[in-house]
Amino acid sequence: MLADEIKGCNGKRAEEYARQLREELLGAVRENGGHLSSNLGVVELTVALYSVFDFPKDKLIFDVGHQSYAHKLITGRTLDTLRKKGGVSGFPDPEESEYDAFIAGHSGTSVAAGLGMCAARDLRGEDYKVISFIGDASLGNGTALEAIFATEKKPENFVVVLNDNGMSIDKNHSALYRSLSKMTAKRRYRTFNSFLSRTFKETGAFGKKLRKVKYTLKGWLNKNDFFERCGFKYIGPVNGHDLHELIEVLTDIKKLREPVFLHAVTLKGKGYEAAEADPARFHGVARNFASGENSFSVALGRLLCERAQEDPALAAVTAAMTDGVGLSEFAEKFPTRLFDAGICEEYAVTMAAGMAKGGLRPVVCIYSTFLQRAYDQIIHDVCLQNLPVIFCIDRAGFVGADGKTHQGLFELSALRSVPNLRIFAPKDCAELADVFDYAKSLGVPCAIRYPNGYAPNLGSRQKIGDYYRWETLSDGDGVVVLASGARAVARALEAKKRSGTDCRIVNCRTIKPLDERVLREIADKKIITFEEGYLSGGFGSAVAEYYASCAQPVRLKIMGAENKFIPHATAEEQAQDCRLSANDLALKIRAFSEQP
Amino acid sequence: MLADEIKGCNGKRAEEYARQLREELLGAVRENGGHLSSNLGVVELTVALYSVFDFPKDKLIFDVGHQSYAHKLITGRTLDTLRKKGGVSGFPDPEESEYDAFIAGHSGTSVAAGLGMCAARDLRGEDYKVISFIGDASLGNGTALEAIFATEKKPENFVVVLNDNGMSIDKNHSALYRSLSKMTAKRRYRTFNSFLSRTFKETGAFGKKLRKVKYTLKGWLNKNDFFERCGFKYIGPVNGHDLHELIEVLTDIKKLREPVFLHAVTLKGKGYEAAEADPARFHGVARNFASGENSFSVALGRLLCERAQEDPALAAVTAAMTDGVGLSEFAEKFPTRLFDAGICEEYAVTMAAGMAKGGLRPVVCIYSTFLQRAYDQIIHDVCLQNLPVIFCIDRAGFVGADGKTHQGLFELSALRSVPNLRIFAPKDCAELADVFDYAKSLGVPCAIRYPNGYAPNLGSRQKIGDYYRWETLSDGDGVVVLASGARAVARALEAKKRSGTDCRIVNCRTIKPLDERVLREIADKKIITFEEGYLSGGFGSAVAEYYASCAQPVRLKIMGAENKFIPHATAEEQAQDCRLSANDLALKIRAFSEQP
Repeated sequence: MLADEIKGCNGKRAEEYARQLREELLGAVRENGGHLSSNLGVVELTVALYSVFDFPKDKLIFDVGHQSYAHKLITGRTLDTLRKKGGVSGFPDPEESEYDAFIAGHSGTSVAAGLGMCAARDLRGEDYKVISFIGDASLGNGTALEAIFATEKKPENFVVVLNDNGMSIDKNHSALYRSLSKMTAKRRYRTFNSFLSRTFKETGAFGKKLRKVKYTLKGWLNKNDFFERCGFKYIGPVNGHDLHELIEVLTDIKKLREPVFLHAVTLKGKGYEAAEADPARFHGVARNFASGENSFSVALGRLLCERAQEDPALAAVTAAMTDGVGLSEFAEKFPTRLFDAGICEEYAVTMAAGMAKGGLRPVVCIYSTFLQRAYDQIIHDVCLQNLPVIFCIDRAGFVGADGKTHQGLFELSALRSVPNLRIFAPKDCAELADVFDYAKSLGVPCAIRYPNGYAPNLGSRQKIGDYYRWETLSDGDGVVVLASGARAVARALEAKKRSGTDCRIVNCRTIKPLDERVLREIADKKIITFEEGYLSGGFGSAVAEYYASCAQPVRLKIMGAENKFIPHATAEEQAQDCRLSANDLALKIRAFSEQP
Repeated sequence: MLADEIKGCNGKRAEEYARQLREELLGAVRENGGHLSSNLGVVELTVALYSVFDFPKDKLIFDVGHQSYAHKLITGRTLDTLRKKGGVSGFPDPEESEYDAFIAGHSGTSVAAGLGMCAARDLRGEDYKVISFIGDASLGNGTALEAIFATEKKPENFVVVLNDNGMSIDKNHSALYRSLSKMTAKRRYRTFNSFLSRTFKETGAFGKKLRKVKYTLKGWLNKNDFFERCGFKYIGPVNGHDLHELIEVLTDIKKLREPVFLHAVTLKGKGYEAAEADPARFHGVARNFASGENSFSVALGRLLCERAQEDPALAAVTAAMTDGVGLSEFAEKFPTRLFDAGICEEYAVTMAAGMAKGGLRPVVCIYSTFLQRAYDQIIHDVCLQNLPVIFCIDRAGFVGADGKTHQGLFELSALRSVPNLRIFAPKDCAELADVFDYAKSLGVPCAIRYPNGYAPNLGSRQKIGDYYRWETLSDGDGVVVLASGARAVARALEAKKRSGTDCRIVNCRTIKPLDERVLREIADKKIITFEEGYLSGGFGSAVAEYYASCAQPVRLKIMGAENKFIPHATAEEQAQDCRLSANDLALKIRAFSEQP
């Protein structure tokens, strides 16, 4: 394994490994998509860590995992199958390799996990280093900040490596980052002068960046002891692309017992010109760098631009995902009304509550998986006060290549029990606009959920205002299929054809409240609920609840995914694996039809 | 209203108001219970704020709300009915008064909410001050830290008032707090000398504390610019009990447009000797200062002490609730194995995941309502890795006097859909031990939920290891009552008597997985599910799901609370309001029995 070869290497050999890794990364990501820029930035750091430390005895904990590809290559994984079904995950996963010390799909967990591992190690009297990687954007996340501030006595043999590439996924406005950019070392590693002399050797974008760091150094030199007060010996900033320097510093750190915070400055996209110039665009590149069109995200972006034009109270809130949720155009057109909270979902939601309380109409645009971070804030700050915040929940349902850390499968069952909240699932982009306008007219907390990727127009029919009403898309006398969510509705229409039966397909665009009028009307029929999500707690569960709450016996079959974590593959493959394809539904419709 | 009288007052008159308020507080809290200590500490601060600012035009946002009683008295509320049904809430609530600018039951929200309100104000071109209160313990919470660090450009006319009483609910070990205690002002308000001279006038515990602040001042004077870098003008520390000083400082702050961080040092329990001496004990006093015995919390504490004796890998994790969850004895006996994360639920859970990964057997003891803060961490860090973390979820179900911000009604439906997690609900303290041992033997993520307050022993019968099996507590040929949770089971037994029918009472101590053997066996009977929680997404929903997933028509009636926020009252009153009393169940059993 490459890890064994790199162990102890230095100089030209180390540089050659780094060069090879970078090339391999570029090729693989070009082929498969993935988080390109951040991975290119940490090639030297990763090589240096593997040169100095004894993994997997020592534990390397990533944060987010967008920086783990070089680590994956070094530890014997190929990226040929990256993010494909059965292939290598886009994130570190202990199930994949013993070198992956901890899962890392969501931001800000590495320091807390590292502190936990240190506690275990020390109580058990074991001896190894715990190294928590963290990016500068993740550092502003609540989980990370809690862990960093939690105790002034940090454990021994604990190293936090800050990969400071100077930008969040989009851009980093945080006070913390500004402080970071002003930081310097008081220790021997980076004396002011030697740092300056290195700095001036650099050219291009990176040199410019280092000079910016330098520019602000003077004022802060010997003044900043932020991390020292949090119990770390602070070392840095070091040049995260200078292998010689990195290996030297890490070798010293290996000998230290005291907790260390190593601040490495890197360049996102390093080595790939287009990515260096526009790293945000290359953060998570789809395969062949193509970007999706006709998606809910794009439709939402356009819609919000239109509605913002009409209503000066409309504001958009995102958590470091301006581009991902479709708000780039909004950000350009309404810069004062776009609030990017950074990777701070809790802050984003509570801030939105404050905005609503103050008279605005905030729209929180967020991925389903990240909304999990703000569950309490949704309950406590938004819904308890019945504030008119609209949550536009992107990537609901199967997410495809991002895999098990990012599935949009939890938020529905968690939100269903939150009072005052209305939940919608439009069947296509045209209906998104109708639902949004209806939700906005209600003036109460609303959640609108939709999947990622291509969204075919299913032909909106009932453009009525009252969206608590479901819509029969295809009538029939047989089994009634209650489908909820864009992909489920599309599959249900397809399933009807394949089933060859006279079933009725209903678009259940409101999940909370349910359209009880329809439920009462169909109570004597055979009913199948169909959705892209867990059976447990989802839309079908709500329907079953309804009938059970009034003790009405019904011939009801609910279809949903078995309750297990679902790994990376395409969203369609994931649906097939969970027996939620159009074909699976067609078979169920036919079988149910034939029952007496 | 007192607010009008206090406006503009100063000197002796202000002090007299403060004295009156303190007396009234002591009386009311002695009578009704409540968060005593923290409220006594902010009397002068509150009077000073009301003297200087124009509430409710200006907005006062509390954090947690444990400091809002003086504010409530000033704004025309009486504490006679504090936390009683139909009476005054223990927390600020906009539904109660226009002076309550934002809800505040959970920690760390005030700064984020304040920033949101400022954004709204500025976009709408309005003009008022937004003042966010925050305690030093809350400051370490992720939501608060995210908001403080979020942007280096803070809005104008925004004031954060830090009530620094030098302790979290239990004790504050955080690095942030240590920094706070070392802070000082560079501005004219508190020059070093004038601060010292004031300090030496103080005697007793408070004087000692101020001297401690002073002691560390020298080293940090003019060095700390933590909050300045976060975009605030930092002012402090000021003596939070010196009305003259407070009014002077606040009057100056009122004139400033720039964002201000005011650091006030206070004494928790000020003016009540017993509370001053032992403020942790008096944090949340039950009525007449009595402490509950024979509760699940007490039982859990004892159990963990025993199990920790046997198993050196067992560790307990709490989030600033050592006492509340019953871990005081554990903390004394096993100080190295008690991890108090502060009010940092996210950090607590991810740390526990790291501990489990490192070979420990962490038990996370937490209130249901606070677990909402760590929903993502439970999914992503614990369950995705299938780690053996046991969650002991206290205050599940109706919480009584703490009211709608603290109900333990969300965590069950949110957790039900999390793969790998097992969920238990023991019927009494004896069964808690059995369930705990069983959960521990499984070596996978487990959640054990139980209510607060007195827990009668219901007579454990089947002390078998296999707790995926439900237990028939009272046999019968009629309706089958599936009861889940200690209070539901107790009420079901009582309801059987009252119903006068031959119903069967089953103790459904495992919620996930369900005991499908029983469900299959009773499928042709009339079934009632009964629990203390929302109908939506709860235990009954799981039962309905089970039958609907296999398309089995059943005569099933699920009983649970309507999906609304439930205000303060006793837990029994809350059950009655939600039609979940023993009597309600008895009526349902009888009616169902009589159906054909």
